[in-house]
Formats: sequence, C-alpha cells, structure tokens
Amino acid sequence: MRNRAAVLHGVGDVRLEDRAVPDPGPGEVLVEVIAVGVCGSDVHYYEHGRIGSHVVQAPLVLGHEVCGRVVARGPGADRHEDGARVALEPGVPCRRCRECRAGRYNLCAEVRFFGTPPIDGAFTHFVTIHEDFAFALPDQLSDEAGALMEPLSVGVWACRKAGVSAGDRVLVTGAGPIGLLALQAARAFGAGEVTISDVNPHRLELARRTGATRALDVTREPLEEAGLEVDAVIECSGRPDALVAGIAALRPAGTAVVVGMAPDGDATIPLSLIQGRELWLTGTFRYADTYPTAIALAAAGRVDVEAIITGHYGLEDTDAALRSAREDPHAIKVMVMPR
Amino acid sequence: MRNRAAVLHGVGDVRLEDRAVPDPGPGEVLVEVIAVGVCGSDVHYYEHGRIGSHVVQAPLVLGHEVCGRVVARGPGADRHEDGARVALEPGVPCRRCRECRAGRYNLCAEVRFFGTPPIDGAFTHFVTIHEDFAFALPDQLSDEAGALMEPLSVGVWACRKAGVSAGDRVLVTGAGPIGLLALQAARAFGAGEVTISDVNPHRLELARRTGATRALDVTREPLEEAGLEVDAVIECSGRPDALVAGIAALRPAGTAVVVGMAPDGDATIPLSLIQGRELWLTGTFRYADTYPTAIALAAAGRVDVEAIITGHYGLEDTDAALRSAREDPHAIKVMVMPR
Amino acid sequence: MRNRAAVLHGVGDVRLEDRAVPDPGPGEVLVEVIAVGVCGSDVHYYEHGRIGSHVVQAPLVLGHEVCGRVVARGPGADRHEDGARVALEPGVPCRRCRECRAGRYNLCAEVRFFGTPPIDGAFTHFVTIHEDFAFALPDQLSDEAGALMEPLSVGVWACRKAGVSAGDRVLVTGAGPIGLLALQAARAFGAGEVTISDVNPHRLELARRTGATRALDVTREPLEEAGLEVDAVIECSGRPDALVAGIAALRPAGTAVVVGMAPDGDATIPLSLIQGRELWLTGTFRYADTYPTAIALAAAGRVDVEAIITGHYGLEDTDAALRSAREDPHAIKVMVMPR
Amino acid sequence: MRNRAAVLHGVGDVRLEDRAVPDPGPGEVLVEVIAVGVCGSDVHYYEHGRIGSHVVQAPLVLGHEVCGRVVARGPGADRHEDGARVALEPGVPCRRCRECRAGRYNLCAEVRFFGTPPIDGAFTHFVTIHEDFAFALPDQLSDEAGALMEPLSVGVWACRKAGVSAGDRVLVTGAGPIGLLALQAARAFGAGEVTISDVNPHRLELARRTGATRALDVTREPLEEAGLEVDAVIECSGRPDALVAGIAALRPAGTAVVVGMAPDGDATIPLSLIQGRELWLTGTFRYADTYPTAIALAAAGRVDVEAIITGHYGLEDTDAALRSAREDPHAIKVMVMPR
Repeated sequence: MRNRAAVLHGVGDVRLEDRAVPDPGPGEVLVEVIAVGVCGSDVHYYEHGRIGSHVVQAPLVLGHEVCGRVVARGPGADRHEDGARVALEPGVPCRRCRECRAGRYNLCAEVRFFGTPPIDGAFTHFVTIHEDFAFALPDQLSDEAGALMEPLSVGVWACRKAGVSAGDRVLVTGAGPIGLLALQAARAFGAGEVTISDVNPHRLELARRTGATRALDVTREPLEEAGLEVDAVIECSGRPDALVAGIAALRPAGTAVVVGMAPDGDATIPLSLIQGRELWLTGTFRYADTYPTAIALAAAGRVDVEAIITGHYGLEDTDAALRSAREDPHAIKVMVMPR
Repeated sequence: MRNRAAVLHGVGDVRLEDRAVPDPGPGEVLVEVIAVGVCGSDVHYYEHGRIGSHVVQAPLVLGHEVCGRVVARGPGADRHEDGARVALEPGVPCRRCRECRAGRYNLCAEVRFFGTPPIDGAFTHFVTIHEDFAFALPDQLSDEAGALMEPLSVGVWACRKAGVSAGDRVLVTGAGPIGLLALQAARAFGAGEVTISDVNPHRLELARRTGATRALDVTREPLEEAGLEVDAVIECSGRPDALVAGIAALRPAGTAVVVGMAPDGDATIPLSLIQGRELWLTGTFRYADTYPTAIALAAAGRVDVEAIITGHYGLEDTDAALRSAREDPHAIKVMVMPR
Repeated sequence: MRNRAAVLHGVGDVRLEDRAVPDPGPGEVLVEVIAVGVCGSDVHYYEHGRIGSHVVQAPLVLGHEVCGRVVARGPGADRHEDGARVALEPGVPCRRCRECRAGRYNLCAEVRFFGTPPIDGAFTHFVTIHEDFAFALPDQLSDEAGALMEPLSVGVWACRKAGVSAGDRVLVTGAGPIGLLALQAARAFGAGEVTISDVNPHRLELARRTGATRALDVTREPLEEAGLEVDAVIECSGRPDALVAGIAALRPAGTAVVVGMAPDGDATIPLSLIQGRELWLTGTFRYADTYPTAIALAAAGRVDVEAIITGHYGLEDTDAALRSAREDPHAIKVMVMPR
Repeated sequence: MRNRAAVLHGVGDVRLEDRAVPDPGPGEVLVEVIAVGVCGSDVHYYEHGRIGSHVVQAPLVLGHEVCGRVVARGPGADRHEDGARVALEPGVPCRRCRECRAGRYNLCAEVRFFGTPPIDGAFTHFVTIHEDFAFALPDQLSDEAGALMEPLSVGVWACRKAGVSAGDRVLVTGAGPIGLLALQAARAFGAGEVTISDVNPHRLELARRTGATRALDVTREPLEEAGLEVDAVIECSGRPDALVAGIAALRPAGTAVVVGMAPDGDATIPLSLIQGRELWLTGTFRYADTYPTAIALAAAGRVDVEAIITGHYGLEDTDAALRSAREDPHAIKVMVMPR
C-alpha cells in the first residue's frame, strides 16, 4: 500500500510526499482516509505557520475533520470490524491526568491532536488512531457528513456550555463554518429563536436556509441596534466587538460562550454588565464526549451538516483546498477526498 | 353579561348554573373563556369526588387548561390590552414563601389552582386571574392550542427535570394526553430517540405520527424485553410496574421522572439498581416558569399540540365531555368551548 | 416617638434631621434601628454623590446593613412578634417580574433597596420594611452581627456563584470588609485553602486570624509570582489587575466571580486563557436567598462577623463614621448605633 | 521479602498464607501495606461469602481501606518516590468506557476493586496498584487516617450527590462507620445542622462528640416524631424504614441519597411525597474523584477520621478483627496493621 501525504513545509508550502503506511499500535486501528474537512485552523497554519504558541517547526500533515474506513487493527483492538466506516475524534487524551479523570478530557495537557504540531493529521491516505476515538458511522450519513462530526462537535459543545434548551433565544455571532454549525446545533438543542450575524450576505443566506430565524448583516444593522434580548450568545467570529455586543444583548443571568479565537488573545469587556446582570462568560477548547450526540443528531436528520459544503478536492489538490478559503468568497467548507 | 358555569355537585353530577360575572381584583384581569381542555384530573374528580387529600366538599367548577380573551381589568392591571387572547397558567402562588422566593413556586403551599377544591375552575364563561398568570398568545396559535399550553407545560417541566438534551434517548411510559405531549416536548428538547409505551394501539399510532421513534405495545412486547437503554424515563402511566421497568432501562446515572400519579401513592422500587447505577428518581408537581417555553415551542412549530385533540363540546355538554374519556376508547384530549 | 435621621444633602454634607416616624403599610413592620454597618457604597455616595448611574439628586438617608427590633406591624403583618430582633434584607423586589419568578430576585429591575437613590436607608431611628425581608435573629447573635448578615450575604452569594465546596482552593483578592467576609464564607463552605491578597498588612493580619491559610502582601509578592493554582477566585478589590492575576491562577474549568466594582466598568481580560482552560467568569449583584444561610452559619459559630468591626458611632456621629473609612487606616467595618 | 496474607477460604475461614511478593506492572507501584481498615463489606464477605451477585468462589484476600509505603515501581511509574506514604484508592477503572470518559469512573463495569471477587485486597504485606490510584499522604496524617480516606470518600461522595452546602440541614440515618464519617463530611461541607439517628447509644455519643448537632436514639424517639425538616438525607443504615422516614423529613425539592445497602434490594417508598414535593432520590456506588478532597479535609483538620477507630490488630489477627464487629458492641472501626 502506498501512503501519499500533503505535507506543510513552511508558510504556503504544501508538498505531496510518500510516507510509510503507519502501523497500528496496541488498541489502535489503521484507517484509510475518505473525507477530510478543511478547517480555519488548517488555513491559519498554512498561512502563518503557527497558531498562538503552537508553531510548525517540522514538516506537518494538517487535517483533523476525518472520516475513513478501518482497514487493519493493532493488538487488542476489537471495537470495529474491518471495513467499518468511522468518524474520527482527532484528539486522544492521556486518560490519566486530573482533567481526564474528571471527564474534562479536552483540557488534558497531554492530548495528541491531529494536525497540531508535532502531531500529523489526515491529509493523507492512512492514519492510525486509538479505536476508542473512532466512532461507527450509521449508513444514512455520508462520508463527508462523517468528517463534519468534528466541527459539529464544536457547535454541540458550545451549546452545552451555553446551556441551550428548548425555547431559548440564541445569538450566534459569525456565520463561518463553525457559526453555521453552532446555529444548527442550537436548533437541535431546541432553541426557539436563533439570530446569526455576519458581514457576508452569502453566508447569511445559507444561515436562513439552515434554520436561522433572523440573519443580521451587521454592515447594515449593527448588533447594538438590533433590539435583541437572548438567553445565550455563541461567539464564532473571533471579533471582540461582536462578543461585547453579544454580552450587551444577554438577558440577566444569561451566558456568553467564546468559540472564535481573537487574534490578540485579550478582550476588553463590560465588567459592569457582567456584574449588574450576573452574566456568565466562558470559552470552549475543542469538546469532550460530543461524538455520540453529534452522530445521533445527524442520523436523526436534526442537523444537515452537508449544507455547508461548497467544494471537493483530491488529495493532490490539498494546497488549492487550503487556498480556496481565502480566494473564493463563496467557499464555506471545502473537503479533501484522499481516496 | 351572563356567566353560565358547569358545576360539579357530587360524583357524576354536573349542573349548569348561572353565576355572577366575577369582578377582577387588584392586578387581575377578567377573562372570557374560549377553550378549555378536559384533563384526567377533572375526570377523576367527576368520577371519584376526590384526588388524594383534595376532596370536593362544596359545589366546584372544574377545568384548568384555559384559553380566553381579556375583557376587563382590575385596579393596577396593565399588562394586557382589552381583547388580548391569553393562555392561563392556572395556579397562582403566594409569591412570598420560601418556595416562591427560590423560584420553585409550583411547590408553594398557598397556591390557588383552578378546579382544585375549593378554587373554581374554567368550565364557565368568565374567570378572573392575576394578569401575571395570563400569557399573550401569538396569532399563529389557535384557541385550543392556547388551552393546551397547560398540559404541554407538564411535559416541558418533566423534560427539564429529566435534563433531556440534544441526542438523548428517552422513554415515555404511557401514551395518554400527558405522555403524548411529553413525547413531543422531549423531541423539542432535542431527544434523538423517543420510545413510548402503552397498551392502546390507537394511541401508539398517534405517538408514531407525532414523533415517537419507537412505539411499544406492551401487551405484545413487555418493556423488560425491549432491549432498551435510555438516558431518561418520563413515567406518565401512573403504573408502578412501568416505573420499575423504566428504571431498569436507564443507563448509569440516568434519571427517572414520575409524572403519572399512582393510585396507591407508594411504589416498590429496585433500590439496588438506583444505588449500583447511581440513578436519579424524582417526580413532578405541576410546573414553574414553563409558559414562555411552551408558547415559544408551539409558535415555532416544534410541537403540534392540536394533534392530540379528538373532540369538541359546548359548555352545556361539559358532562358529556367528562364522560367521553371513559366511554370513547378513541378519545384522547377533548375540548370544552364555552363561547 | 421621635425619628432622627442622618441625611445626605450633598457630597460630604450629612445633616441630622427630625422626620416623621413612618407608618408600616400592608404586610410591613416598623423597625427601631439598633445597629447599622457602614458599607463602602455608603462612603462612595458620601464622597462622590453617585455610584455609576445611581445619582443622589435629593436628600437621602444612607445605610443598608441593618439590625433592629420590630415595634409595630402594618395590616396583615403577622410574621414577627412585637419586640422581635430582626436582621433586615434591605432590598425588596417586585416579586412579579421574570427574574423574581425565576428565583433571581436580586436582578429585579423594580427592587427598592435601602440607601440607594431615591430610597432612604437606615441611618435613622425607625424604618419600615415588608415583614418577609425581616429575619428573626437567634439570641446568640449580637445586634452588630445581625447588621452584618448583609455583607456576609455578599460573601455567601459569591461562594455560591463560585461553587465553592469542601476541600476547594480559593483565592480572595482584596481584604476589605467584603473580602474578609468572603474569606470566612469560603471557609464555611468547606474550602481547604483560602489565600487572600491585599496591600494593607493590618488587614492581612486580620485575615490570618479569621481563617486565611495564606495572606499575600502584593506589594512584596505579586499574585503572578505566588505560584497559585485555585479552584475559584473571588475578586473583592475592584481592581482589574487583580482579576486578571486571579484568572491566571485558576485551574482548568475554574470560576472567577467579580464582587468588587471597578471604577471604570470595563476590564481587559485574557480571553485566550478563558478559552484554553474553559474558565468561567461571572459577577455578583447583591444576593438572593442568602439570609437563612448567613444566619445559620453565624449562629453555628462557623463565621465570626464581629471580628471585622473596628469602631462604633452614635447616630449623631454618622458623619464621622462615614469619614473614618478614609481617615483611619485601621478602620475596617464601623457601626452606627442609633439607639 | 516475605508476603504473608490473610486469605478467606470460606465463611468464617481465614488462613494466614505466604504468597509471592507481586511484581508491579507498567505504571504500577509496589506498596508495603501499613494500615487497613475493616469495612462492613469485609465482614459481610467473611460471614456470608457473598454480597449480592458478588460471590467468593476462590480464596480471596479482603481489605480495601489501605495506607502503605511505596517500595518499588514498575516500568514507567514515576509519580511517587520510593518510600512515599500513600493512601490507596482501591478501585482501578478501565479508563476507556463511556462512564470513564464522562468522569463517572466509579460506574465503570470493568473496574478492578480490592477485596471484591476475584480481585485480592490488602490484608497482606504487599500489594500493587496503578500509581495514579495511590495518593501522597501529608505528614500530618497518620497511617490509620490514610487508610480511612476510603470510607471518608464514601461520605464526601454522598455529600456531593446530596448537594450539601453551607448552612444546610442534613439528616444522616445510621451511625456506623460510614454514617459517622458522612456526618463529619457534611459538617466539612458547611452543614449548619446535622442530625444523626441510630439505636446504639455508644455510637450516638460518639456522633455528638464529632459534630452532630442532634443525635436521635430512635428506640426512644422515632424519626417520624422528631419534627425534622432537612435539606438532605444521607441513608447509611441499610434500613428501608429509615429511608422512608428520611424522605418524609425532606423539605420540598430536597434530596435523599442511599448509601447503606438494604439486604433485600427493593424498597417501598412514598412516591406521592416524591411527586408532591418534587424530591430527588439517588444512591451511591463507591465514589469518584474524592481522594484529593478527603485528604485536603483531613489535612486541614476539618474532619477527624481517627475518632472512629476503636481497635488495632496485627495481620495474624485479621480473623479476630473481622469478628470484632459482631462480638464487640463498642467496636466501630478496627484497623489491621500488617507491618
């Protein structure tokens, strides 16, 4: 078997290389990669060579939104049949530290996460992963949908942190792939009204088609003037001003969850509102224990993750896939299909 | 104005009488009743003259699932316009006691609840209620839907107690009006799979049409043999054996919520399972703070409360409406339309 | 009966005046004031004539930490005997709005709070209050302790918001009266380690005597260098830099609660930490449902609120009491004793 | 090195045998046992040869309340120095299943628990355990205290499940070793009033000395007549009638936690109370993530676990230690000291 990989060697420098097919270790499965979503963080590594303190210092394979097929099993692995189609949860924690023990394994300091230096990701033909982090995909879900269980997990996790429940009013700021899936997740959690905001009319139109009860073009109608009162804000734009406007829209005791990463890392927030209304502010870092939920929601037809897909690329065109995010204003989620 | 009322004088003895139109007190509104759902508890009072320690000792007007129109306002009442269509939350608590202060006002010992001795209910033309317990009804909701915000509230409350969230697997035991609305509520809370059980094929068929992913006829397939594992059980049949079977179907750390009232009041439960799996068992008594949620869900089309309506009666036929529950095997929810 | 009052007429201008003894309305009690604590907010109104948007525009009686004795009762008031010693919860909410109904009555927009424009407070001989907000004081608690149930409530509420539980490690920033009582509250909630920080050695010494396991003089040892990891931060200094240092000391998934009011109202916070560690940030606004807890803790000897008292003044010296906070570096909590 | 063990061969048949010193596997430590508490479950196995479905079918070493000293380390174990004194958490879960992943590792079906067939326990000189389940013991804690971190964990876990917080009123039914430590745990969680009930005056007297604010001899004053209202019940007697009386004493929305195991496994409970007051009922199965809390509480002097120790035995007298529970009416917690 041949294992071709799209390897990032430096900013804007992705090269196709042949690598050895990896050997699944104890408890691991070998997965033939079928579909990989391109995430904003992949694009960020491609364009900047780093995200915060994570710096690409050696050749790195990106890609962590993965669907594939089990083709071999390491010693002791017995959870999946050969040939089983699986969605990969791309971060494998240590399972030993305080955070893992408490069920907050996404905060494990020893997590090994696909496509994050120095761990290779899935823009390649074959990857290995511990079998516990491969989830069987029901037949009604496509390969691409399987890959998108990862960004859907981000939305599910944000809704859990925000405590979204039936009849709630939710504001999602930012209608990129994460915002659009957070919107769908909020609907699946029972939200009665979901407002989404962005500057891109194309994305707002897609948001309307996928469940937004209100889609605000903030170039025309600033959030501050939209007269909103919401139970929860899910910030997906990475813009502190959107966060501040969202906080101001919260009802007393409401919750703001920051998902989008601000370039700077700091934000000036209205502490007097947080105190006077006893608001809650938190942020998310990946997700924990979301795959069964994400798969159940998709299988039941309560979310339509494929609605955000705007393009497909072969493995040899990974470079073009990574560039499309910037070059194509209509691109939302593009897929790399290695097989 | 004339105020005709259907008055319960004793077991099976409902008489139409003229009563004075009540005067709305401070903060109250006078409501012309349009639609009233017949609840199992109304039928129980009609057939037995009591529910537990609540005994009908003087003539009583039943009916507490109410939609009407505001036609006058008492001193200081300014929340609703004349003519406003409203759903009534039929229990007005003291707002002063420890439970009220803590937001658990459904547990207020001083609550005045429609159609519960000695407080009259709504099988009549006019009632008064504090304006805070009348909720404006959106145009898209019918009068009957307005009345059914009450039993839907029971379902919403049960889902909150059970912590139903997106992707959950829920078992509802009993497919009467409350079970059917609990089913719909669970779906609205995001449940991925909702199994419902009953002995009545007609009701099970309705359950399938309104969102059940599995409807078990327990005369053919006992719950114990259905191979279920669920995150939450909502017991709506009033049968301890259904509760016990539901508890046995719970995953570790799952929750069982008892909504249906067992005739006896005691139940023998598998304590060793509750300990060994650290299950949670609780029950519901009415609901608190559910009307905005119920109305939001119905207005957004996420529940279809009218699906359970099987008949309409005039006020003069209240007696027949109360009897239909027993006499008509196809009756689920019948409405009395006083106007 | 004579009702003398210390009335704020402008910045630094407190005058003794005779006022009519107020008449208790329906459900209210007339309370003869025995002890009133001077709060930082009283001092702030005295020195600046305003706190944020609350501006003193007419003569105002300050004072909201109150213990007194019931001397008369309005119509329907039957909760307290004449002569009963009571601690007053000084904010009476509307009991009707969404926040009140949900048990979050401290967020009621219609609350009437002692000593907050335009509601008069308790630097006077007689006040009225709804009997539900007067709490019977056990014999073992002194009059001063009764008055200090108010600032202790602030500490109790902060601990509830922070989720302080047995064995937790807590950081309290700021050792003023609120910080010192938050420290004692945290101990009463079971905290195993409580670190407190301030710049005033006198206050830090008192903190050590009242339960701090570590008292940091940040002029010598900055918080950033103290090597702390804590489960919760309770910010009582009103300084954003303390908040930022506290956030940095939180373990993953820890909680920071802002109690002290920053002069500015905004704060620049490390959003990347909040995201990367999934921290929670909230603030408190007064308290809800804390008096029974505060009284129980004090009565059981689990807190010693009198430890923070540094002086007593007569009503005629209210002016001096208000000035002492600034003029006496050893002053922590001073009491006005009207009777 | 010699490894002597007290081995249960059948009901009432404990024999001293020499066994090989076990070899620590990967990540494991070899622990020289210093102190082992005798638990009611050890006595139950000794007297009946089984607990529910757990049957002793082969020779078994009992003992799971363990303090010891690390004397060797297996491959990769680096958490403890040689010679470190450690308290052992005696159940090592799989760390892989759904329950482990969610932080509920006590509900792991694959857990290997000391002294539970077929896993040997600690009435012996040497045991091995994964280093993550050995907790460093602070100097101020004695060896015996280290062993009693296990039953204290049961109390801590019960208080967490019951949501015990500052100022709460708690009822503990049963004043055996678990009830007595649950009492102390409740105090450490901030409970203001803790009532404990039993039939043994000696135990009640000890309860009074260790923090009970009320100790009820139910042979003289039945629980039903004690006029109690509590926020939480912790049932430690294994008697369904105590549970029922405890449930009846709960305030609305209160919680009952069943810790003691009823011989039968079923219990008839007042469902109508659970519904009418919306009570919560749950049970505990061991504990999760309690050792850091238990150690912190003991180290801070907030619990005094040694207060319940009534006797010490050598390893060769394990048999007598197991019999003392029945034969000595004053025995509460006896310790086996192998070294």
